[in-house]
Amino acid sequence: MKALSCTDRGVELLDMAVPEATASEVVVRVRSAGICNTDLELARGYMHFRGVLGHEVVGELDGHRVAMEINCACGRCAVCRAGGRNHCPTRSVLGILGRDGGIADYVRIPADNLHTIPDSVSDEAAAFVEPLAAALHAFDDAAPRPGDRVCLLGDGKLGLLTGLALAARRADLGRAVAVGRHAEKLGILEAAGLSTEYESSFSETGFDLVIEATGHPSGLARALSLVRPRGTIILKSTYAGAANVDLAPLVIHEIRLVGSRCGDFARAIDVLAKGTIDPRPLISARYSLKDAEQAFTKASEPGILKVLVLP
Amino acid sequence: MKALSCTDRGVELLDMAVPEATASEVVVRVRSAGICNTDLELARGYMHFRGVLGHEVVGELDGHRVAMEINCACGRCAVCRAGGRNHCPTRSVLGILGRDGGIADYVRIPADNLHTIPDSVSDEAAAFVEPLAAALHAFDDAAPRPGDRVCLLGDGKLGLLTGLALAARRADLGRAVAVGRHAEKLGILEAAGLSTEYESSFSETGFDLVIEATGHPSGLARALSLVRPRGTIILKSTYAGAANVDLAPLVIHEIRLVGSRCGDFARAIDVLAKGTIDPRPLISARYSLKDAEQAFTKASEPGILKVLVLP
Repeated sequence: MKALSCTDRGVELLDMAVPEATASEVVVRVRSAGICNTDLELARGYMHFRGVLGHEVVGELDGHRVAMEINCACGRCAVCRAGGRNHCPTRSVLGILGRDGGIADYVRIPADNLHTIPDSVSDEAAAFVEPLAAALHAFDDAAPRPGDRVCLLGDGKLGLLTGLALAARRADLGRAVAVGRHAEKLGILEAAGLSTEYESSFSETGFDLVIEATGHPSGLARALSLVRPRGTIILKSTYAGAANVDLAPLVIHEIRLVGSRCGDFARAIDVLAKGTIDPRPLISARYSLKDAEQAFTKASEPGILKVLVLP
Repeated sequence: MKALSCTDRGVELLDMAVPEATASEVVVRVRSAGICNTDLELARGYMHFRGVLGHEVVGELDGHRVAMEINCACGRCAVCRAGGRNHCPTRSVLGILGRDGGIADYVRIPADNLHTIPDSVSDEAAAFVEPLAAALHAFDDAAPRPGDRVCLLGDGKLGLLTGLALAARRADLGRAVAVGRHAEKLGILEAAGLSTEYESSFSETGFDLVIEATGHPSGLARALSLVRPRGTIILKSTYAGAANVDLAPLVIHEIRLVGSRCGDFARAIDVLAKGTIDPRPLISARYSLKDAEQAFTKASEPGILKVLVLP
C-alpha cells in the first residue's frame, strides 16, 4: 500500500506492506485523512516522529464508517483506570507517537478506539471529528460563565474550528470575538455569526477567557496582554521548539494557563450529527493518496485550511 | 530621613524629606523592613521601578505596631468592587510600582492598608507578614486534596516560607517534599518536619501539585517535568526578562499553570499569632538603616536568606 511517511529524508510517499490485524487491533480501510498543523510540526521535528503521518482519519470496517481516537492506551495503569486514557504514560498516538497514522490505504488501530459515524454525518464532515473534538475540549477546563467575555486568538484550522464552537455558544456570552489575520478565514466565522477582528488593530483587553490557537510561540504573549487579572488562557498551540515569553504578567495578574489537547469523540460526532457546527467550509483542497506529497506541500502554503487525502 | 532608593545609578541610600500625611494616607514610622528577591530583581530592571525600595514593612503608628498591605487600590473600579483590590488596574504597589517603599525612616501608606499586629507576634516574626501571606496564597488556587503528592521547587526565601506552609499541612498529603540546592536552607524545612531532596539527584515525578518558587526561568521547565498529566503548577517566581521554555509538555499533558502573587495579610498574622509557622530561622542578618546599602549587597550574596533593615 501507499503511505505518507515522515522519514530522515523528509515527508515522502512510500510503498509499505498492509498492516496485519492482531488480537486487539483491527485494520481499517481509510476513507479520508486530514492534514493538520501538528503534521507540519512533526515534519519540522516536533515529537521526533518517524512513521506514517495522519491522525484525522475516517475509515471503513465491516461496512461501517468509523472515526478513530488517536491515543492508544494500555487500559490497565493507574492513569487509565482513573479515566485518563488520553494521558496513559505508555500510550502510542496515531501518526504522532510510536504508531503509524492513516495517510495510507490502511491503518491498524485498537478496536476500542473506533467510533461509528452515523449516516446523518457526511464523509466530509466526518473528516473533522478528531480536530473538532479537540476544539470543543478547549471549553472543558474553563467553561465560560454567562456574561463572560471570550477572545479566540488564531484563524488557522484549529482556531477556526474552535471559533465555530465559540459561535455555537455565543448567545450566553457578554462578548465573543475571534482575532486573526486573514479576511477569508475570518469570514468563515462571521458567516457562523461570530464577531471577528484583525489582530493588527485589535485593542480590547480584559477578557475572562482567551483561547490561544495561533500555533505560534508569540501567541502566548498576546494572550497574556488580553486576559483580565485572574482570568484564564487556554493554550491549544503546539509547536516544535521553545517559546521565549515574559511570564511576569502571568504571576503579577495571577493568570491561569491551561494546556488543552484531545477531546471527546462521541461529543464531536453528536455535534456534527445535529448540525450545530458545520466544518466543511474549512476544506481547502482534496488530493488522492497517490498525490499525498503534493497534498502535504499544499497544506503548508499560507492561507490553506484543511487538505483532505482520499483513497 | 534616610531611604534606600532604586535610581538610574543603582541602589543607594539617599537623604529625603519625610513624607506628609494626606486625607487618606498616613505616615508610619518604620520598625523593620525586609529585603526580598523582588527587590534584587527591581535593581536588575524588573518593573522599571524608580523610588524607595521595601515592601516587607513593619511600622508603628499611634503606639500600635502595624503591617501594611502593599497594593494600594482605587477602591472604586469594577475590579476593586469585585474584591480584586490586589489587581486594581490603577493601583500603586509599595516599593514596587509608582510608590515609595519602606526601607526608610518613614513611609506613607493608605490607612486602609494597615493591619495591627497582636502582642503575641514578635517584631522579628512580624517582619514576615507580607512574604508569608504570599507563601500561604500559593495554596489558594490549588488547594491540595487529601493524599495528593506535592512538590516545592526552590529553597530561597519565598521557597522556604512556602515550605514552612507546606510542612504545616503535610499530615493530609500523600507526599510533601521540598527540592533545593542548599543543605543549610533545606535543613530549616527538615527541622519543620518536611522531607527535602537535592535538585541534582531528585528523580520522582507524577506530582499532583508543583509549586515553582526557584526565582529562576529554568524552574518552570523542571516543574513541567515533575507534574503529572492534568496536574497543577503554581508559579511564584518573578524575574526580569523572558523565560525560554518549551511549552509543548503543558499542552500535551494538559497542565494547569497558575500565577500566584500576594496573599491575605490577616491570615498570615493569624498563623504567626498561633505559632503554626515560625519564620525566624530565615533571618540571616540585621542592619541599621544607615548601612542599608551594605544590607542590600549582603542580601544578594549566595546563601543569604532574609536581611532585615532596622532603624
